[in-house]
Amino acid sequence: MDAYTAVVSKRDRRTFRAEPVPREALSRILNAGRMAGSAKNRQPCRFVVVDDQAMKAKLAGYGDFSRWIADAAVNVVIVVPQDARDLDAGRAAQNMMIVANAAGLASCPVTLQRGDEAMALLGIPAGNRIAITVALGFPAAEGSAVAKEVADIQAMVAGPRIPLDGYVHRGGWQAGTQDR
Amino acid sequence: MDAYTAVVSKRDRRTFRAEPVPREALSRILNAGRMAGSAKNRQPCRFVVVDDQAMKAKLAGYGDFSRWIADAAVNVVIVVPQDARDLDAGRAAQNMMIVANAAGLASCPVTLQRGDEAMALLGIPAGNRIAITVALGFPAAEGSAVAKEVADIQAMVAGPRIPLDGYVHRGGWQAGTQDR
Repeated sequence: MDAYTAVVSKRDRRTFRAEPVPREALSRILNAGRMAGSAKNRQPCRFVVVDDQAMKAKLAGYGDFSRWIADAAVNVVIVVPQDARDLDAGRAAQNMMIVANAAGLASCPVTLQRGDEAMALLGIPAGNRIAITVALGFPAAEGSAVAKEVADIQAMVAGPRIPLDGYVHRGGWQAGTQDR
Repeated sequence: MDAYTAVVSKRDRRTFRAEPVPREALSRILNAGRMAGSAKNRQPCRFVVVDDQAMKAKLAGYGDFSRWIADAAVNVVIVVPQDARDLDAGRAAQNMMIVANAAGLASCPVTLQRGDEAMALLGIPAGNRIAITVALGFPAAEGSAVAKEVADIQAMVAGPRIPLDGYVHRGGWQAGTQDR
């Protein structure tokens, strides 16, 4: 898939079917995360890969909006130093999700509000924190029971996309239609 | 360019030659940023596009490590609500830089430590902040004066990339070679 298509066609999807992610695809996804640039090349991110069913089920309980972690074939927990900004984690997560999209995989970032409990489960040392978790897997078929259930949840948060004119201010800020 | 190549070949580059970014390429880059997913689909980012030479020169003065803003053909200032996390800005920035890379453009995220002054310059309303600025342009030729000068600065911060094994912990955290 060409780069532009992989980037702009990427949607955060939360429904997965029970099929493992091929080893080669996962390796490319993780490498994509690793190759994300970082401020002053500090390379702050580390990735904890969780694909064990029991671990996934536990991990899914540590967020308010995270049940899909249990359904995803693989979850990549992005760990950063406690004082790191989230920007570099966002770059790494997006790299992984774009490469996943190009490989036909669905993905979604998941926030774990009870990150300390997740860190204990995964044995992540103090001084770190979980920036975000990326859930990955082949997408569930449209119309499946799990797809319908999750679609209802997605509908609660999904609104229309703001058009490009609402995003872009040229030269400086202009008061406009998409002001906050 | 295929998606994986565009993602893993992307380097943060700070040397640009004086050649404008084609309108169509910029439009695709901005759209890529717009299409980045966001937590609860809040779409928190706005993009202020700065390509005027005098404005660029001023903007370049608002960071500690930001002189290349003046050389970049275009700078995209990513603005978010004051209380937003940086993760969504990182996702949007990475989308833009991947599409730029696929179009043969160099790019680099730049932090503006004096963001309040930059906001005043650009007329960005209170309640927002600048998450990051993405400098974009065609890369300077290797060996040019500007390339050499910036290469010296880059050398100060660039170390070797940590190998994948140093990034990835499988199943849970393992004490290892790249511990912090």
